[in-house]
Amino acid sequence: MKKLVAEFIGTLWLVLGGCGSAVLAAAYPELGIGFVGVAIAFGLTVLTMVYAIGHISGCHLNPAVSIGLWAGGRFELKDLGPYIVAQVLGGIAGAGILYLIASGKAGFDMGGFAANGYGEHSPGGYGMLAALVSEVVMTFMFLLIILGATHSKAPAGFAGLAIGLGLTLIHLISIPVTNTSVNPARSTSQALFVGDWAMDQLWLFWLAPIAGAILAGLVYNYMSPEKE
Amino acid sequence: MKKLVAEFIGTLWLVLGGCGSAVLAAAYPELGIGFVGVAIAFGLTVLTMVYAIGHISGCHLNPAVSIGLWAGGRFELKDLGPYIVAQVLGGIAGAGILYLIASGKAGFDMGGFAANGYGEHSPGGYGMLAALVSEVVMTFMFLLIILGATHSKAPAGFAGLAIGLGLTLIHLISIPVTNTSVNPARSTSQALFVGDWAMDQLWLFWLAPIAGAILAGLVYNYMSPEKE
Amino acid sequence: MKKLVAEFIGTLWLVLGGCGSAVLAAAYPELGIGFVGVAIAFGLTVLTMVYAIGHISGCHLNPAVSIGLWAGGRFELKDLGPYIVAQVLGGIAGAGILYLIASGKAGFDMGGFAANGYGEHSPGGYGMLAALVSEVVMTFMFLLIILGATHSKAPAGFAGLAIGLGLTLIHLISIPVTNTSVNPARSTSQALFVGDWAMDQLWLFWLAPIAGAILAGLVYNYMSPEKE
Amino acid sequence: MKKLVAEFIGTLWLVLGGCGSAVLAAAYPELGIGFVGVAIAFGLTVLTMVYAIGHISGCHLNPAVSIGLWAGGRFELKDLGPYIVAQVLGGIAGAGILYLIASGKAGFDMGGFAANGYGEHSPGGYGMLAALVSEVVMTFMFLLIILGATHSKAPAGFAGLAIGLGLTLIHLISIPVTNTSVNPARSTSQALFVGDWAMDQLWLFWLAPIAGAILAGLVYNYMSPEKE
Repeated sequence: MKKLVAEFIGTLWLVLGGCGSAVLAAAYPELGIGFVGVAIAFGLTVLTMVYAIGHISGCHLNPAVSIGLWAGGRFELKDLGPYIVAQVLGGIAGAGILYLIASGKAGFDMGGFAANGYGEHSPGGYGMLAALVSEVVMTFMFLLIILGATHSKAPAGFAGLAIGLGLTLIHLISIPVTNTSVNPARSTSQALFVGDWAMDQLWLFWLAPIAGAILAGLVYNYMSPEKE
Repeated sequence: MKKLVAEFIGTLWLVLGGCGSAVLAAAYPELGIGFVGVAIAFGLTVLTMVYAIGHISGCHLNPAVSIGLWAGGRFELKDLGPYIVAQVLGGIAGAGILYLIASGKAGFDMGGFAANGYGEHSPGGYGMLAALVSEVVMTFMFLLIILGATHSKAPAGFAGLAIGLGLTLIHLISIPVTNTSVNPARSTSQALFVGDWAMDQLWLFWLAPIAGAILAGLVYNYMSPEKE
Repeated sequence: MKKLVAEFIGTLWLVLGGCGSAVLAAAYPELGIGFVGVAIAFGLTVLTMVYAIGHISGCHLNPAVSIGLWAGGRFELKDLGPYIVAQVLGGIAGAGILYLIASGKAGFDMGGFAANGYGEHSPGGYGMLAALVSEVVMTFMFLLIILGATHSKAPAGFAGLAIGLGLTLIHLISIPVTNTSVNPARSTSQALFVGDWAMDQLWLFWLAPIAGAILAGLVYNYMSPEKE
Repeated sequence: MKKLVAEFIGTLWLVLGGCGSAVLAAAYPELGIGFVGVAIAFGLTVLTMVYAIGHISGCHLNPAVSIGLWAGGRFELKDLGPYIVAQVLGGIAGAGILYLIASGKAGFDMGGFAANGYGEHSPGGYGMLAALVSEVVMTFMFLLIILGATHSKAPAGFAGLAIGLGLTLIHLISIPVTNTSVNPARSTSQALFVGDWAMDQLWLFWLAPIAGAILAGLVYNYMSPEKE
């Protein structure tokens, strides 16, 4: 149960911090943080949580991560369900707090919140195939980083840095394509508030990250110097 | 006494570095550092001090941090008073040095310095409720990061990184809402120079961070795998 | 063979992440990541891979790095060929995935992709001599960082940070000069897609990085406190 | 002798990387790195060198650092002279390489290079007193970070991060005031190329950093929990 509370709070932080920086601060006139700031924010939510709760729950904060770790033989099937539920609920709670703050401003317009999308809902107008490729490959690399940096042969303690900054990197590349998901809980949390097109396109942000994560589990196990 | 000198200098640095970057460099024409630069600066004041003076005083630099650590059972009640006094005085000294530098320029106008505010004094025009929620939640998460990253089960040495970069993250999210406090000493240091509305609104930047910090101490103790 | 797969994937990531951030996100209107974001992205591709695959292949991802390590007595001559082939193929694969994503947008124009160039193809209009000096010196310093940070007397585990952030630094300085190569595999991957002038100028981005790398191997061995 | 070669190359890199990013990339149209990028670049020159050559020479790269370490009882008086000479020569060599690259462009105008200045030569128009205060306080804090992070009670290995990022922080605050020196070798290297007013004002960028550094050595020894 403590693990699930940790996953709930951690995913709340990922959504509040990552999506929150995008909604509240990215486009602030003159001084706004832009995509660079949002990319750093997403990465730092994970980096901070790895050190804060990594020793409690492992700090997945993401259904694709839990599934990828299972595919790589690092996580038990029976824990998948509870973890994913805690992550999705945490994400929704984070989105709720963000909504409460963001709406506390005259003339607030939710617009697309920080929802993920493709086609006309891609920030840069990228089509569905580009979005699929981007989300599969980005999640594949994210899991490879996670599996490698937490391997017993990697230097201990640095995994939080590599994984958090890996998520920053992924956002630096792919925000223009899909607003970057690689995390179905993050996508769901925003889609529930936006409804409409964001719900219609949500399938891709479950399917692609999970596919990329499973693939990474299999590939990493082939590459890995030895079973951990 | 050495501990108090360390807290004084550390909080001086937090205010001079964080507020200083905001006042001197954020809005410099064309090349200014914007909110991203200010967020990085605040985080780095704490990161650098954790490694420089962490082994002397624990490097709190913030009354809410001292109180949160007390709530989490990591700091003694009898030390709270002296630490908080040293932090507030250090913050004021930092603001004084900043004023000395900033005013050394023709046409200097203090404006709001780097004071925290809500309503019409929020950078983005966010109301009092949004400000309260933001400061409570941000300080709650800041303390959770501190309590978790300094736990004996977290990898040793990395706490300074996680905590400093956590403060960067908090600023990336919430500068538009309240100019980001999560630290009553930082808020007080600026309000004393600005006076007027900044003093009137100062209560919120003591109340909310302390409430968030105490809550974090209680929640973390529930989640924590074992007493340290 | 596992080492070569790791080098292939790692170099794929370097090109997809570094060049990808440049092509997809650098010039996005208003919120784009600019040269700062691209510099961070290139560095983080290497940083993440050092922790993910460093314990598999050593994580060179760059023919100049493999050659410089050989010159410094850290890598065997017989492994140079296979490593370089894997790196170039990985780079090309990364460029292919990037092309697939980038072209998934109405009105896509490849332009110069993220190719390296001098003279009229230098981003800032720098001539061939400036380009040569820049690439030789930057690669020289990159290898010095690699050789020093992986020396047995350097603190263990931090090499990935120093090397990755060193590549970020190199980009912060020299993107305006040559679009920054210091890596023949990265240059080749882009030149093959751009053809034309990029192929004509490609020689410089093999010659200069390799010359700088060999020089670094020799100088470091002179400076080094002892053989490793 | 190996130590002096290391200091020479390290200071060369500090000037080429820090001043180079300012001269070549800061004001590049649209995509330029601005003061944030320059601040990161200066910090990363030191961060990378600490891991690359710290185990050879201690990686001072700065006469004020050598003098401050002497004042703090960490460095021998007899080594001060040779170190400072190597640092100044390295800085000049770095400026020479930078000049060679920067001038390789049609219409190159050196302007103020990356020289430090006050009054009408301060980027933001700050007067001499503000400049003096800024340089003394910034160097004082820089040395405090160095002395603290390399103390035997600080976590081993992290000093390079704290010191490098500390220099980034110092630049985030004070570039508008003096273009940030805290390093007489860096200032001298630029002033020699600019001549004129930069030479006239150079005294301040020897006096203030050295004064701040000596003060830090004395204060830290008072605060320090025990002699190392």
